[in-house]
Amino acid sequence: MSVTYRYPRPALAVDCVVFGLDEEDLKVLLIRRGVDPFAGRWALPGGFVRLEETLDEAARRELREEAGIEKVYLEQLYTFGAVDRDPRERVVSVTYYALVKLSEHRVRAATDAREAAWFAIDDLPKLAFDHETIVDKAITRLRGKVRYAPIGFELLPKKFTLTQLQRVYEKVLGYELDKRNFRKKVAATGLLVELDEVEQDVAHRAARLYTFDEKTYRKLEKEGFLFEI
Amino acid sequence: MSVTYRYPRPALAVDCVVFGLDEEDLKVLLIRRGVDPFAGRWALPGGFVRLEETLDEAARRELREEAGIEKVYLEQLYTFGAVDRDPRERVVSVTYYALVKLSEHRVRAATDAREAAWFAIDDLPKLAFDHETIVDKAITRLRGKVRYAPIGFELLPKKFTLTQLQRVYEKVLGYELDKRNFRKKVAATGLLVELDEVEQDVAHRAARLYTFDEKTYRKLEKEGFLFEI
Repeated sequence: MSVTYRYPRPALAVDCVVFGLDEEDLKVLLIRRGVDPFAGRWALPGGFVRLEETLDEAARRELREEAGIEKVYLEQLYTFGAVDRDPRERVVSVTYYALVKLSEHRVRAATDAREAAWFAIDDLPKLAFDHETIVDKAITRLRGKVRYAPIGFELLPKKFTLTQLQRVYEKVLGYELDKRNFRKKVAATGLLVELDEVEQDVAHRAARLYTFDEKTYRKLEKEGFLFEI
Repeated sequence: MSVTYRYPRPALAVDCVVFGLDEEDLKVLLIRRGVDPFAGRWALPGGFVRLEETLDEAARRELREEAGIEKVYLEQLYTFGAVDRDPRERVVSVTYYALVKLSEHRVRAATDAREAAWFAIDDLPKLAFDHETIVDKAITRLRGKVRYAPIGFELLPKKFTLTQLQRVYEKVLGYELDKRNFRKKVAATGLLVELDEVEQDVAHRAARLYTFDEKTYRKLEKEGFLFEI
């Protein structure tokens, strides 16, 4: 169905920066484009917004269609509107970022049947459009966020060791943290509940498992806190 | 010039929450709508994005056209995309917030010749569209921001007293602060430069004037800091 408007208007798209963490790296989900422009180039999952869906719904639909990813923590990032960001025509993109447990999201390129893969953030291929700028913005936002809101709920398994938690922060921040200092600061937040369990099936000495106090977590997430690391 | 597209697309607008501070209140700039929908209702300055301008440029153009405001500190806030937020058709709005010195921005409804006025944030009239939600989001963002970035450069005159600075924080936060504690914390940031001058033409004992150390200000603005107030 084609449609006529009195004045020309930009096309409106959504694009998503999905972060996942594994043992080694903080990674970003990319989709290989099948069509021009930039055919064959890696890009963020995304697409055009439909009239009958909200922006959030469009982002979730694209993640589902392009990577089979559902039920993720999703937050609006920024809206990119450079006039020439798409060589075809004026396209404004509302971007989102999401955090997922990589272990639970081995991606499959879903209905759109394109290639999908995770890339370490310090080893990204050349991306289509202005998607490198969008990824940079998302990393900056995530790094800012760890200073005033808890992260980890979406990136860690339900039960985790303090070493795993520290690794989340190190991978997001991009540098190593002092173990003793980190543990002191985390303890001070009141976020952690020590479990009466240790790791199973590990070669090294089994470490204590923890979980998040969800009430405290949601409170800190909402009100913010000061985590100087 | 009318134009035909293969698929229908949302219209794209920008709307701006302009904050200004005077002796009494934190205020927001509103424009009285001249046309339907919501004719006669107060609304945020804003309008449709043109194909040849960026989103930031659209926001600045609307502020200039609707309120004669130029050269303000402007930051993108959030993009609102509820399907039914405009009764005419689907309109997605990229919103901005701005901080201005009220004394320098006595508004005039400019080229569009509509009524423009400042309203205290705790005494707003009923607004058009979802503009109350947008104002709430802007206030929340501004209140969050004062905890990790300096504010004041855009809201205060070049030389100001510590009382004036404290008032900025109190008006933004919506509650009173302990004077001694506030001054201690501000001093600790290294933001202030004490001038060899005092207030002129005041009935009370003239207070010392300060200015911001711009280098420190820009650094804290960029890197963030922890200001627990």
